[in-house]
Amino acid sequence: MAGALKLEIAISVDGYVAGPNQSVENPLGEGGEGLHEWALKLQVWREQHGREGGEVNLSGELVEEALRGTGATIMGRKMFGGGPGPWGEDPWNGWWGDEPPFHHPVFVLTHHQREPLHLADTSFHFVSDGIESALAQAREAAGEKDIKLAGGAEACQQYLAAGLVDEIQLNVAPVLLGAGERLFDGVGADLRLEQTLVVHTPEVTHLRYRVGAGT
Amino acid sequence: MAGALKLEIAISVDGYVAGPNQSVENPLGEGGEGLHEWALKLQVWREQHGREGGEVNLSGELVEEALRGTGATIMGRKMFGGGPGPWGEDPWNGWWGDEPPFHHPVFVLTHHQREPLHLADTSFHFVSDGIESALAQAREAAGEKDIKLAGGAEACQQYLAAGLVDEIQLNVAPVLLGAGERLFDGVGADLRLEQTLVVHTPEVTHLRYRVGAGT
Repeated sequence: MAGALKLEIAISVDGYVAGPNQSVENPLGEGGEGLHEWALKLQVWREQHGREGGEVNLSGELVEEALRGTGATIMGRKMFGGGPGPWGEDPWNGWWGDEPPFHHPVFVLTHHQREPLHLADTSFHFVSDGIESALAQAREAAGEKDIKLAGGAEACQQYLAAGLVDEIQLNVAPVLLGAGERLFDGVGADLRLEQTLVVHTPEVTHLRYRVGAGT
Repeated sequence: MAGALKLEIAISVDGYVAGPNQSVENPLGEGGEGLHEWALKLQVWREQHGREGGEVNLSGELVEEALRGTGATIMGRKMFGGGPGPWGEDPWNGWWGDEPPFHHPVFVLTHHQREPLHLADTSFHFVSDGIESALAQAREAAGEKDIKLAGGAEACQQYLAAGLVDEIQLNVAPVLLGAGERLFDGVGADLRLEQTLVVHTPEVTHLRYRVGAGT
């Protein structure tokens, strides 16, 4: 399934992909860091972010597999960060510093045009003409590889509701957030899911579904 | 953990335990039957409901384990069925016919008093003085065994929010319902979860969590 659009996201047991009261200081919202604790411990995550040590387990194998298979990433403006509105003269360059961990083209959905941003071996392309355009550009950039839909909730909801997602992988962390952004808000009931993979460690369960068209 | 209150419920990938537009004709709501397809195929389920044949798999083992370990069930009035309000002169006796599949005492949360109902080896006790009273009565009835909190959403939410649930088992069916009753609405973020079991077949994933007190 090369060239597939794969949504992969960490989610709480109660269905949130970010906690309440998100801010620049707390981009994941209250409690949101609990969604990612399993990932931050992984050797593959630490290596990707220039750090040593870490755990080697089944979650790490999935992360490595995704890294190898992904040729482009799509994300929403909110995940890229920097607040809403025009980019301004000294624009926000993302959460990830001078060496972002993507190492491939990233397509950022935004209502506001902006020139591409190159940081080390990651390029950010700002797409203001819609999710289908972003997907077409990402697919072109990815070549034989897949496209990862990384978040946030709103971007995922748009692609899901449009029937453009080929695979969903939920990394279910054992936390309740109680409020925040729900992944499936407004997505409806038209998509058909086929459970294709379940992998778990004591700290997370990865649920993977192939997505088909509705009835 | 004998005498534990164990919430076990089928849930969609988008977090619903019943679909929209529930009615007497369609008590699970639109699409809600998709939550239970995996269960209806099981030999143990069919045997429990007086039918032959069926599949033997890991889901069936979990169901059998729960049957052996459960001494009482708690459910909400809505799950028992028959609509809201006083019971009337010819009261609703549940969805399950003359031989309900519980085979132990069932405690039904209701605002309206009613004498106990005995159907074969299942007894229904109507509790109108609150969830803690129902739990105390169920625990007394269960003896060394556990108590199953079976649904619906509102009953589960009340017990979860009160911190009375010891274990949560979500049977995640590969369906989206888009609307309906969400299990965790209003539960908040105070409960601590520890993932204790993940078991899956191609048709369902069982996620089990031990529930601890908040921070």
